[in-house]
Amino acid sequence: MNLDPRLEESSVFVTDLELCQVRLSSNGKFPWILLIPRLDDITEIIDLEEASQILLLQEIALTSQILKDLFAPHKLNVAALGNVVPQLHVHVIARYTHDEAWPNPVWNSGVSETYSEEALDKRISQLKDAYSVYKR
Amino acid sequence: MNLDPRLEESSVFVTDLELCQVRLSSNGKFPWILLIPRLDDITEIIDLEEASQILLLQEIALTSQILKDLFAPHKLNVAALGNVVPQLHVHVIARYTHDEAWPNPVWNSGVSETYSEEALDKRISQLKDAYSVYKR
Repeated sequence: MNLDPRLEESSVFVTDLELCQVRLSSNGKFPWILLIPRLDDITEIIDLEEASQILLLQEIALTSQILKDLFAPHKLNVAALGNVVPQLHVHVIARYTHDEAWPNPVWNSGVSETYSEEALDKRISQLKDAYSVYKR
Repeated sequence: MNLDPRLEESSVFVTDLELCQVRLSSNGKFPWILLIPRLDDITEIIDLEEASQILLLQEIALTSQILKDLFAPHKLNVAALGNVVPQLHVHVIARYTHDEAWPNPVWNSGVSETYSEEALDKRISQLKDAYSVYKR
C-alpha cells in the first residue's frame, strides 16, 4: 500500500497483520494504535469488501484485547474518522479516567507528548511481542 | 435492554435491527446515527460475542450506506468512544467539508442545533423508510 505521509510521520511501525498495518501513534500521552488496511484507495470501512470488513473487525478486536491486557485501561476508544487524512485508518486508544484529556476525545485535545527513545523502544517491543503471540 | 437515560434524552428512536437499536442524535447540525446493541452490560465492542460483533459490523455498514445514499456526505465518521456514557453505542455521522465542525470531530465541537419538529419528523421518516428496505 501507499501510506499517507501524515500517517507515516505521526506513527511508528509495529507489525503487519493479514489486513492491516499496525502502527503506534507517536503521541506518548496515550497507548494509541492505528490500524491501516494494506490496500490502496480505501477511505471508508464500506469501501472494503465484506470479507475484509470482517478481517478489520477481527484486527480491531485483537488490538482492543492487547491494549486491555497490556495497559489495563478504563475505556477503549475505537474510531474511523479520516477528516484530515482520508486514507482509512482506525484508531484504537487506551483511555484512563485520570488521563489528561478525559472524558474528551483525544483528537484536538492538545494533550501530546513525544516518547523518549527508551520508552518508545520498550512500547514497540511490548506490542510486537503481544501481536506475535496471536500471529503464531 | 436498559437504555442509559443520557442516550435516551439526546436521541430519538428510529428502528430496531437484529442487534442494535437505531437512534437519531437530536443534534440537527449533522445526520448522526447511534447504534446501540440491545443487550445489557456491554461497554466495549469486545464485550460482545464474536457473532454479535459481526452483526454490529454489518449494521454499521448498513447505516453507513444509508447515510451515504440519503445525505451524500464527503466523509463518514464511525466511532465507539463511551467516555461519558459507558453503555456501548456506535456513532455513525455524515460529515461535510462545509459543516461547521469540519475537520474536527463533532464531540465537544460546540456545534449543535435542535431540529424543528417538522425537520425531525421528516428525517425520522426518511430513515425508517431506508432501513425498512433492508429489513424486508
